[in-house]
Amino acid sequence: MASTASIISGTQIAAQITEELAAKVSQYRERFNKVPGLAVVLVGDRKDSATYVRNKRKGCEKTGIHSVGFELPAETSEQELLQLIDQLNNDPAINGILVQLPLPKHLSENVIIQSIAPSKDVDGLHLQNVGSLVVKGPAHTPLVACTPSGCIELLKRTGVTIAGKNAVVIGRSNIVGKPVAQLLLANDATVTICHSRTPNIAEVTRQADIVVAAVGKPELVRGDWLKPGAVVIDVGINPVPDASNPRGYRLVGDVHFEEAKQVASAITPVPGGVGPMTIAMLLCNTVRAFETVVVEPALAAEAQNKASD
Amino acid sequence: MASTASIISGTQIAAQITEELAAKVSQYRERFNKVPGLAVVLVGDRKDSATYVRNKRKGCEKTGIHSVGFELPAETSEQELLQLIDQLNNDPAINGILVQLPLPKHLSENVIIQSIAPSKDVDGLHLQNVGSLVVKGPAHTPLVACTPSGCIELLKRTGVTIAGKNAVVIGRSNIVGKPVAQLLLANDATVTICHSRTPNIAEVTRQADIVVAAVGKPELVRGDWLKPGAVVIDVGINPVPDASNPRGYRLVGDVHFEEAKQVASAITPVPGGVGPMTIAMLLCNTVRAFETVVVEPALAAEAQNKASD
Ligand SMILES: NC(=O)C1=CN([C@@H]2O[C@H](COP(=O)(O)OP(=O)(O)OC[C@H]3O[C@@H](n4cnc5c(N)ncnc54)[C@H](OP(=O)(O)O)[C@@H]3O)[C@@H](O)[C@H]2O)C=CC1
Ligand SMILES: NC(=O)C1=CN([C@@H]2O[C@H](COP(=O)(O)OP(=O)(O)OC[C@H]3O[C@@H](n4cnc5c(N)ncnc54)[C@H](OP(=O)(O)O)[C@@H]3O)[C@@H](O)[C@H]2O)C=CC1
Repeated sequence: MASTASIISGTQIAAQITEELAAKVSQYRERFNKVPGLAVVLVGDRKDSATYVRNKRKGCEKTGIHSVGFELPAETSEQELLQLIDQLNNDPAINGILVQLPLPKHLSENVIIQSIAPSKDVDGLHLQNVGSLVVKGPAHTPLVACTPSGCIELLKRTGVTIAGKNAVVIGRSNIVGKPVAQLLLANDATVTICHSRTPNIAEVTRQADIVVAAVGKPELVRGDWLKPGAVVIDVGINPVPDASNPRGYRLVGDVHFEEAKQVASAITPVPGGVGPMTIAMLLCNTVRAFETVVVEPALAAEAQNKASD
Repeated sequence: MASTASIISGTQIAAQITEELAAKVSQYRERFNKVPGLAVVLVGDRKDSATYVRNKRKGCEKTGIHSVGFELPAETSEQELLQLIDQLNNDPAINGILVQLPLPKHLSENVIIQSIAPSKDVDGLHLQNVGSLVVKGPAHTPLVACTPSGCIELLKRTGVTIAGKNAVVIGRSNIVGKPVAQLLLANDATVTICHSRTPNIAEVTRQADIVVAAVGKPELVRGDWLKPGAVVIDVGINPVPDASNPRGYRLVGDVHFEEAKQVASAITPVPGGVGPMTIAMLLCNTVRAFETVVVEPALAAEAQNKASD
């Protein structure tokens, strides 16, 4: 029997991160009498967005992060949304601001995201945070996009060496492909970015020790696209019709899991792979934003007091 | 006899761009009674920096851009330099601010560069401009780093198709490697970034239709690293000892020119390749900054006046 890939459980790793964060938050509560605060803004009534928002707020509950929800009607004006963000930017109890995307068409996502204070931009989408990731790298950029950092965290926590490896990223979106490529590069991989204009994509992907697929095409990446022993991170979440499922559909990744698992050394499942990590990294970012504004200055002040004793 | 590569003359292409800019600037002078203004700030007395600054100001003269030089002593404090930049940020006659790098060690390049108004950052190094290049792409980012845009301009003006090609960038610095990779990606190449931690670099480079070398190692890239017919952009400028040269040294690129020219279909020489393009793109950026602040609003106002006639 051929050996099959080990399964990288995002569910388990995310649960572990959530526990670690809960311990930190509880320490901070005792020591500083404060906890991180996350504002979650939902505009309109998309069902999928409502589910995401609910899960994010559930994650806050589990970790002791204080979350505040804002549910605005679909016809909210840009002016009104900007006013809310301005208020949240100036609220010291709020360390992170998450505006759930996509927004209704009449609102400019770019204008809205750029109006969030970079220090509270827990989605890591503000141009200044994106620029900082490129120039200063993740070690000096407190807020990095959640799904990409989730991918890297999965690799690191399963002991995959990134440095010196060939990594191929399929997809170049601003929320996944480009930042995950930056993170792999900062971790010293040789990085190739493929997209819809890449002619020989199977061949390019076959060079990879690490494959990150963020395409949005069900099971695009076949077993024969993979080098034996490759590590596969499947970001895709694609509903495909399935009559045997009570909902009438099931979720599959961008990678053909059954085929890939015969060739890869390790692979993330869908669901239960990258998905749960996105929320875990959002909680991480919220705690990090709190640490930057509350914990680090407090510790620095303490150290100075001690020194001058 | 084996056919050899055609030589991509950066000197000629830069001269052509300079001419085009001169024509534009002279039109703007007539029409708006204003010309673009560039402030060139040199701190300390490095000879190489003084030469670069002199060449940049010469470029301004050729195009009709008004340049103002500031030569500060090496012991200038961060405070003093920040004050000068603040003054230039607020000076409507100044559209671009160039602080020649490297700065003396006691000055933080990061602090200084981030203090330049993004709209006047003609070196394209402000985090907001770097982030914008990633997220919005070059078409929606007026100010992009000069050497990288020079590389792309060389490809475009010699009729090299970038879309769908395999591009390999050797080097991942913030001023060349990373932004040139972003630009190639935005132009629909499949992009691979190599660096000092890439183990199989010759093999990776041999996959490339387009090679950009920005390493700083004399003649690192040998003929047998190249796929026959590849296009080679050599960013490197490396002095190597040469007794036959009156100066005692000569400049070579990161590519072994004599070998590469037997294999490549086109190649940039050193000197006379990417070097002259860097200044041409700085002048371009200065004109673009002027257009954003002066020309576009004026044209918009004219259009509105006409509409309301
Ligand atoms: N697990 C999680 O938490 C998250 C999961 N996702 C999932 O990840 C997937 C990707 O999302 P996102 O990045 O936002 O998607 P986008 O649609 O924004 O980007 C898709 C990218 O894939 C490229 N692409 C499309 N078709 C092909 C093809 N046939 N071959 C190669 N490349 C192709 C596109 O290329 P081009 O640029 O040329 O058009 C584009 O760069 C989706 O399934 C999404 O649901 C997304 C975010 C979070
Ligand atoms: N024409 C022009 O106007 C300009 C020319 N230049 C020239 O371009 C060259 C590069 O400049 P710059 O980008 O600033 O240099 P940096 O030193 O900042 O970056 C060099 C890059 O090359 C990588 N590198 C070093 N050694 C090797 C190796 N043996 N194999 C593969 N990669 C390697 C480094 O990798 P790692 O990150 O792992 O250390 C690094 O990413 C220089 O010669 C410079 O003079 C630069 C700017 C403008």
